[in-house]
Amino acid sequence: MAYVVGFFCMENIKKSKIVVLGGGTGTFTTLSGLKVHDVDLTAVVSIADDGGSTGRLRDELGVLPPGDIRQCLVALASGDDALRHLFNYRFSEGSLDGHHFGNLFLSALEKIYGNPIQAISAAHRVLNVRGKVIPVSAQSSNLFAELEDGTVVEGEHAIDVKDNQRAKIRECFLDPVVIANPEALDAIREADAIILAPGDLYTSLIPVLLVQGVAEAISECKGPVIYVLNLVAKPGQTDGYTAQKFIEKLKTYISPAKVDVAIVNSAEIPEAVLVRYTKVGEHIIKDDLNGECKVYREDVLAEKIARPIAGDRLERSLLRHDSAKLAKVIINIIKSFGTLRG
Amino acid sequence: MAYVVGFFCMENIKKSKIVVLGGGTGTFTTLSGLKVHDVDLTAVVSIADDGGSTGRLRDELGVLPPGDIRQCLVALASGDDALRHLFNYRFSEGSLDGHHFGNLFLSALEKIYGNPIQAISAAHRVLNVRGKVIPVSAQSSNLFAELEDGTVVEGEHAIDVKDNQRAKIRECFLDPVVIANPEALDAIREADAIILAPGDLYTSLIPVLLVQGVAEAISECKGPVIYVLNLVAKPGQTDGYTAQKFIEKLKTYISPAKVDVAIVNSAEIPEAVLVRYTKVGEHIIKDDLNGECKVYREDVLAEKIARPIAGDRLERSLLRHDSAKLAKVIINIIKSFGTLRG
Repeated sequence: MAYVVGFFCMENIKKSKIVVLGGGTGTFTTLSGLKVHDVDLTAVVSIADDGGSTGRLRDELGVLPPGDIRQCLVALASGDDALRHLFNYRFSEGSLDGHHFGNLFLSALEKIYGNPIQAISAAHRVLNVRGKVIPVSAQSSNLFAELEDGTVVEGEHAIDVKDNQRAKIRECFLDPVVIANPEALDAIREADAIILAPGDLYTSLIPVLLVQGVAEAISECKGPVIYVLNLVAKPGQTDGYTAQKFIEKLKTYISPAKVDVAIVNSAEIPEAVLVRYTKVGEHIIKDDLNGECKVYREDVLAEKIARPIAGDRLERSLLRHDSAKLAKVIINIIKSFGTLRG
Repeated sequence: MAYVVGFFCMENIKKSKIVVLGGGTGTFTTLSGLKVHDVDLTAVVSIADDGGSTGRLRDELGVLPPGDIRQCLVALASGDDALRHLFNYRFSEGSLDGHHFGNLFLSALEKIYGNPIQAISAAHRVLNVRGKVIPVSAQSSNLFAELEDGTVVEGEHAIDVKDNQRAKIRECFLDPVVIANPEALDAIREADAIILAPGDLYTSLIPVLLVQGVAEAISECKGPVIYVLNLVAKPGQTDGYTAQKFIEKLKTYISPAKVDVAIVNSAEIPEAVLVRYTKVGEHIIKDDLNGECKVYREDVLAEKIARPIAGDRLERSLLRHDSAKLAKVIINIIKSFGTLRG
């Protein structure tokens, strides 16, 4: 008895390449939501962080700031749960107080390999990361903010401090000027969609755009640039900003200016939450968009009011994006742009 | 056309259970050699270390001293090479100076899980450990040495300090008295052979034997107790000791005394090495065994003169056991005792 076994030559189906730019919690949320979809996911991450555990490791060991990279790796990790918990664990006693274990992990790897790129690549294997996390540059840099009164604030962490008395930010710059990691530029150029993740405009997103080569790579990308607008303005950074103002500011860092789509939350904010924000002088971002770009107004709000992340000392928004809702909206937008190949 | 598929009921072949007691480099060597053999391997490890990185983590975080456990885990790890390098990596700058990454790893896990047993178990998974590493107790303790002049030295690290002027050690004890981990006792009782690993008699091996329940469990074990004699005496601990003296002292910590076999190196020590030892007032241990137990005189000497382990600050012996040769001798002894079931 004979069997004929047939082999079918399957067409090589390419997955959509989605590149997320940013750093911090908003990027974590975006990646966490997108990773369950069948897409080719890359995070291009800030290297200008200088606060907390990250800042100390940067200063003492001379490593690339690990904090933002760590968060993105955890978002995309698919390995052992224990390892993921471990990566986000923060010591709270003795001389290790404040150090996230994952930061120590990345720093030790960088010291062993002698460069951050190989270290991050080893971390991908250990955490069984789905997708890729790429530092926007292999060199760290310092973020500066020039305020409207002419003073200059040095350091991402200092800029990030909540200070209602301080003059508004006029513009941010990096010193030293650092050149982008070629792998990051390739990913951006070849992306089917670029997501500008929600988060602190001046201390998470713009530090990525400021790296030499990034703005040009974005303008060379054929896919849409999709900006996920924040829910709440950040005191000392973006207070008073409306949605228009966010996009206007953002465009000055992408040359030639290219923001194709904005995702704006359309879900109602609970009254009680509004009251709490007003009490501390903060506000929900007003949606006044009118022709600046294509706007998707969708419910992307997390239903549970966020609690601070364990071990996180910064004050955080109570309102958060829902990772699953946000990812769904992003995927639909990419589909409608005809570039979702999956 | 019909096929008859036959299933053969294989007899369940049990592997020999080998339990290695100790901590430190000699235990690492023993485990590294034995792990390539088809045996069921368990390390029961000291919890009295208080030096260096381990001591700081113990003091600051209140964790079980991770150093000896880390070394044994690395010896038995079969996972990603990067992870094994990482585990043994020692920071050498800033506030992390001196910390072995693996110690931070185990400490973070213990803080997450709230107990060392679960932490070590998670580390087994991450490192893909072949065999088992069990702390002799779930509580840490402090080692004390009473000297022949009546003074008492506190702490494994202090006892370990090379000091030719100090009186000889009369006996060691633990304070607080800690109870053995039941899993360690089960492993010891059920062992087909117990290996007392080479290493510092008073600061690596005896701290394991001092834990409540261990000596009794050893005497209940039906397999042979095999003692791997050191090559060189340790200044401040065992200077002047001959092989007889080692076994005599050791027997006072196992009640009723039970050392069935001694493995003594028979390979010639290079003249140049002897000269170097004599220069610093140290000596090769004289083999004067004569009926105390069965003695295997074999070539177990590493051919290369050892260099200090990267990042290890302690002064170490130039002469080392060869892990492969030692393991072969151990396996042959167990075979001749008729308990190698593999």
